[in-house]
This record gives sequence, C-alpha cells and structure tokens, in this order.
Amino acid sequence: MDPWVDSYAQRAQGLTTSAIRALFSVAARPEVVSLAGGMPYVSALDSDQFADIAARVVREQGAVALQYGSGQGDQMLREQILEISGLVGVRSHPDDVVVTAGSQMGLDLVTKIFCDPGDTVIVESPSYVGALGVFRSYQCNIVHVAMDEQGLDPQSLREELSENSRVKFIYTIPSFHNPAGLTQSYERRKEILAIAQAFNVPILEDDPYGLLGFEGEPPKAIRSLDDQSVIYLGSFSKIIASGLRVGWVIAPHGVREKLVLAAEAATLCPSNFSQLVVSRYLAEQPWQQQIKVFQELYRVRRDALLQSMQALMPLDVTWTVPQGGFYSWLTLPQQLNATNMLPRAISSMVAYVPGTGFFADGQGAQNLRLSYCYPDPARIEEGVRRLSGVIEAELELVDTFGVNGDSGPSAGSAHTHIPRSDLV
Amino acid sequence: MDPWVDSYAQRAQGLTTSAIRALFSVAARPEVVSLAGGMPYVSALDSDQFADIAARVVREQGAVALQYGSGQGDQMLREQILEISGLVGVRSHPDDVVVTAGSQMGLDLVTKIFCDPGDTVIVESPSYVGALGVFRSYQCNIVHVAMDEQGLDPQSLREELSENSRVKFIYTIPSFHNPAGLTQSYERRKEILAIAQAFNVPILEDDPYGLLGFEGEPPKAIRSLDDQSVIYLGSFSKIIASGLRVGWVIAPHGVREKLVLAAEAATLCPSNFSQLVVSRYLAEQPWQQQIKVFQELYRVRRDALLQSMQALMPLDVTWTVPQGGFYSWLTLPQQLNATNMLPRAISSMVAYVPGTGFFADGQGAQNLRLSYCYPDPARIEEGVRRLSGVIEAELELVDTFGVNGDSGPSAGSAHTHIPRSDLV
Repeated sequence: MDPWVDSYAQRAQGLTTSAIRALFSVAARPEVVSLAGGMPYVSALDSDQFADIAARVVREQGAVALQYGSGQGDQMLREQILEISGLVGVRSHPDDVVVTAGSQMGLDLVTKIFCDPGDTVIVESPSYVGALGVFRSYQCNIVHVAMDEQGLDPQSLREELSENSRVKFIYTIPSFHNPAGLTQSYERRKEILAIAQAFNVPILEDDPYGLLGFEGEPPKAIRSLDDQSVIYLGSFSKIIASGLRVGWVIAPHGVREKLVLAAEAATLCPSNFSQLVVSRYLAEQPWQQQIKVFQELYRVRRDALLQSMQALMPLDVTWTVPQGGFYSWLTLPQQLNATNMLPRAISSMVAYVPGTGFFADGQGAQNLRLSYCYPDPARIEEGVRRLSGVIEAELELVDTFGVNGDSGPSAGSAHTHIPRSDLV
Repeated sequence: MDPWVDSYAQRAQGLTTSAIRALFSVAARPEVVSLAGGMPYVSALDSDQFADIAARVVREQGAVALQYGSGQGDQMLREQILEISGLVGVRSHPDDVVVTAGSQMGLDLVTKIFCDPGDTVIVESPSYVGALGVFRSYQCNIVHVAMDEQGLDPQSLREELSENSRVKFIYTIPSFHNPAGLTQSYERRKEILAIAQAFNVPILEDDPYGLLGFEGEPPKAIRSLDDQSVIYLGSFSKIIASGLRVGWVIAPHGVREKLVLAAEAATLCPSNFSQLVVSRYLAEQPWQQQIKVFQELYRVRRDALLQSMQALMPLDVTWTVPQGGFYSWLTLPQQLNATNMLPRAISSMVAYVPGTGFFADGQGAQNLRLSYCYPDPARIEEGVRRLSGVIEAELELVDTFGVNGDSGPSAGSAHTHIPRSDLV
C-alpha cells in the first residue's frame, strides 16, 4: 500500500507497471532468443582503442572531464555533431546544437517546452514506444496518422491537421522507422514538410538510424530542407555506443534557447566525461569506417531474419523489409493476438515486442516488432524457427477451438509499459 | 524573431535568459576570482588511478559499459550506494534506490510525479536555485519558510502547512545548506519530521554535501528517522566527480516505482559507462580516505574565506559560518543591493551569486552567496579583498549620493536565471 497514492500529479496516473514488464525480465534469460530489444551490437567496437581513449581523456583532460560543464554541451563536440549531421544534409551552427543525455532526453525536453496537457501531438501508426511514453507523461493527446510503404500518409496527415486545432508538432522517424522498418522517400519528405509548413506546425524529426542504411547514400533528413520548421534529434547510441548516453537536438534558434534552459533544469549539464570520450573518438578514430562495419553487420542480420521468415513463417504472416536500421514489423493472421501470444512465445524461448505498445489507441493487436540488431544470424534463424512454431500452434488452437487465447496478461491494453531499455 | 513564440507550453514561459547570464560568461575569464560557482575541486582526485579504472571498465566490461542498461540503474552500484548512504544513517533496500544522471534529475523526476500546476512546494529561505528552476518548470507554487541558525524554522513551517492545502512536499537541504551554509541540528530534524508527519506531507531531503562536514561524524539524514515520509537525494558529484553525472534517489516503495517509469521516459537509462566507473572506483579505491582529503581541502578554504572576511569586510557585512559544504551566505548593509552591485564586482575581477536567485519571491536583494570550494586559499583571500573594496565603494557612493545604484541589469527580478553549472 503506497501512503502517497493520493499525492501524485495527474500526469503520473499513467505510470503503472504491467504484467508484460514481468514477462520481459523472464525474457532476459540467456536461453531465450530475444528479438525484442533494440540493443546495438556494441561488441563490434574496438574496445582496446576505446579503453585507451577513455584513459587519455581522464589523464589529459581530467580537470574538465570530471567537472560540471556547459548546459548546452561541449563546444567542440557540437562542431563534430554538425560534421556527422552533414552526412544527412543537415546544416546548422554549433550554437543551435544542444547535447543531451541520449536523444530520449531531447524528446522529453521538446515535449516539455511545447506541450500543455491536452495539446495534440501527431505520430505515425505505429510509433516509437519511448516517444509515446514521453507524450503521455506530459498528458498529450496522441493522434496516430496512417503510414503506407513510403511512410507517413500525406492525405491522412492533412485530415488530422485540419481536424485538430492544438497540434504542437508532428513526430516522425523518416529513416528506417522504429518499429515499422519503413523509410520515407525524398519526395514524401518534401510533401510532409510542405503540409507542416502550410499548417504552421513544426516537425520533430527523430533520426537515430539515418546513417545505418544498407545501400546507397543515407537519406537526406527533412531538416536539410527547412531549418525553421524542423527540430532534429540525433544520437550516438547506434553509431558509437548507447552506454555513453549522448544524443543531440538541432533546433531553430528560439527553440534552442528554451531547450538549453529546460536541459539545465533537468540535469544541469550533460556528462563531460561521456562527451569528451565521444569527441576524442570522433577526432582520432575512423568513425565513418566503423559506421560501415555496423551497416554491414546489421545488413547480414537483416538478411538472416528475412530469409528465415521467408522459409519458415506460416503463409498468412506478412512483414516489412527494412532498408536499414534494426527492425521489421510483422502482421499476424487476423485471428491471432500478439500480446496474448507473448507468454507462449517466451515459454518457447523466443521474445518479441507486441504491437500494441507502439500505439496509444489500442491498435496493433495483430502486430509485433522483431529486432535483428543484437543476436547473431544463427540465433536469429533459431528465433524465427521458434516463433514460427508458436504462431503455427496458435493457428491450430484457433482452428480447433475458435478462440484466440484471450487469457493473456494485458489483452486490449493500449498502455503496454515495457522496460524502455528493451524498446529503443 | 522566434516563429514558434506562440506555440510553447505555459510552463516554458518562465524559461527566459537574463542579463545576469551574460555577466557570468564574462566572469568565467581566468583573471576574475570566481566565488560564484559550486564546482568541486576534482583535481584532488588521483587522475591516473581514475584513468586506469575507466580503461579497465571498457576493456573488461565493454559489452555492458557501452550498452543500454536498466532504467533503475546498475544493481551492484545500487548496493554500493546503500553503503555510502549508511554513513548518514540511511537504511534501505537496493530495490528502492534509483540511479539518476546527477541528483538534479532526481529533483526533476520527483517534482514531475508529484506536482500538478499550482501545487505548493515548501522550500527554505533561501533555497537551492536549481531546485527553484525545477519547481518553476512544473508551474509549482513556491512557498518560502524562514530559517534560523538551526535551519528551517518549525513555527513558520507549521504556519505555512496550515495555510496551504495542496502542499506536495517540503524541500530541504538539512546539511551544509546551499546557499545558506547552515546545518539543521539532530533535534531540529526530528522536529521538522514530526511536523511533516502530522500534516501528512513528505519531505524531499537533498543531501549532496552530507559527507563533507569539517568536524565530527556526518549529520544523520532525516531519512534515517523515517523511510516512508522522506525521499532522499544523493550525489557522487561532490564526493567523487561531478562530470560523471551520477546521483541517486532513495524513495518509499510506491514512489520508487513511479520514479523508475518517469526516469525511463526521461532518459531510458542512466549511463552504464559512468555507473561502472563509479562502481569500480568504490570497489577498488579508498573512497572514504578520498572524502577525508576533500573535507580537509574544503575546511582549509572555508577558513581562508572566513579569516579574510573577518580581516577585510566592512563592519556592517555579516555572514554564516559553514561547518561543511561549499558556501557562506552574506548579508550586506541595508542600503546595498547585491544584484545591482554585481557588474561593478565583475569589473573589479571578483564574482559571486546575488541572493535574489535563491528566492522565488523577490527576497534576497541584500544577500549574496560565496563559494570557497574551487579557488585556492590565496585566490580566495584576493577575491575577498576585491569584494570588500567593491562593497566599500558602494557604501561611499550611497553615503555621498543617497542612491543604491538601481541601474543594475535586473533589479528587482525574482527570476534570476543564471547558468546552472555556476550554481550547483
């Protein structure tokens, strides 16, 4: 019994744990093939080099590395961030870059400065579960807009913007979408931007995977087309290492000013220690080459996933074919429910994230997200084999008894809270 | 001109920069003796040892250190945190510890889960400027309660609790207060707690300096007296290194549950890299001995400050005598205004923090905070010499012209926004 149960803010009402969360701690056992978490494969880094950098940062810059720093982030790192963002066409000034403790914090701060309770945020269908958590925590009205194979659907976007008057921003992951595995074409990006401009609503562009495409040049960011209407979120989590917790926001000048003040209230300043390690890594190491290593690694794993699904999945299961990033999005036959199926999957030693977590409105019961970033190809194939078996068994159960196993832990819940570290 | 000026949330209205902020960037010049910032003297750490620890964490635990981790924080570190908190009498279970990116983030999360706009938070007079920034950012009603030499005044506290119906918590820094330099006696702590219990309002106890006392045993935390009514904030910033951004919250079970979910929404998880470096430092290094080194270092600097003030300050200036921590709180003669005096002080190459920043209600015009943690004793003496000269010149000006220099940059502003990293 919590003695403070009546003292919490309204925004904390949604902060409750779920049975799903408990399932995920079981899923962390090594015998379970986890296709759930979006953990980058950091073992592909040269840890000796990295250890040497960390040591030299402390030895040679200790008085700075171990001290409080600027609320906006290290000046040199902000310049290096622009070099990286330049690869997706983003041009800016270091003054308009804010370093954050991971790009999740950027999401939180942008929402905090823009959204009063009841304000609307437009998101894709499905959308990143960690973003939905932030929007809920500021009591936003979350409106999902449909996607087609090119990403956010322009006609649906226009309709929702016409119908909702307090839309504070459009949240989109245009490249290698989490969880949908889709990428907006260049034409689509221009169209989405034109709509946002016409309705005078900013775009919050989340781009953690933009440099992790499997072929050709990285897609140009929407931010490369308009520096006044787009707030851009970037991250070192997937191109260097998630454990450092260093991300960034590139924002129009006025927004940046508020973001820095909000960031100072939230954490005083980002870690100089982490920042200087990242900065020195970028200055000394062939980081573009390392990104190529990651691209190739993830491409091979993506192929392993797609090939095993092609070979093993029941006929009625469909999925998206990602051109980069970490995820494929599956649609189960209509009679199945991915949330209800999860306990059985975990009993069969395979884990995924059920689709309902990526929606605020109860959609996604037929969907699930598979990640191919962390397990090696043989484990991925074994995971798909187990999952295919579970789906087949479910289909048989339904055929025999005409039920879809509604005894699951959180059937119909639109607020599936899962440990966030499994869901990036 | 900010195109989004009409789009921000109400809570962002208070996020504006001030002339004071610009002054502080001037004050960062090396020729200025800064008695403003609360930067711990991290150069007292053995940086070779620290460098070696950082390198071994990456080399031997890289797959964990560079990866996402638990939203609540590393399990072993949470156990070590309890060992440290035990020194101020706090007993708890590792399950009720939440690791944060500095204890500022703990402040932010507690406020986020407890406070709706308009809810009241009771704070000391004066209070930590970074806490006031957080409370403002969640649109709290900030009510100051008087302090005497023993800290928070019981009678005033009782009155404010009687008069305000939506008090969400009492925020207090009982040991080596920032900025007041005062410490609550054990009797006073029991009295404050009894009042909080009687009104059924939790205490938010902020204790970054608790282990940095100059004599005797560290003061027992209020949390040591009641584990259901007190939320305890701790930090490694002052006992190890602020640049790591690692702090913690110890909370009653129900509060802890909400805090973890709020922390995951805010940053997904604290940095494993920083956490494992702290954890290994605590496991391998004589950290209690290092705390003694810090205590002795700061005691010598405190003495340098007090002795030079005794020798040099005009008669009508008074100050508190801290028994630990980083700060002394000065009161100027009635006819002077510390905010208006600041530009003249900076011209004379000495910086302090004007008192108004530590109040939400316009008090503090006659006050200023001096920090002795960072400059060496000779610099402290030189700083006091310069400041005494400035105060004397101001007094002469007032005596001659009967004005108190109201041409200052933000006279009368109760919302003095100063770069937070100068104000910890």
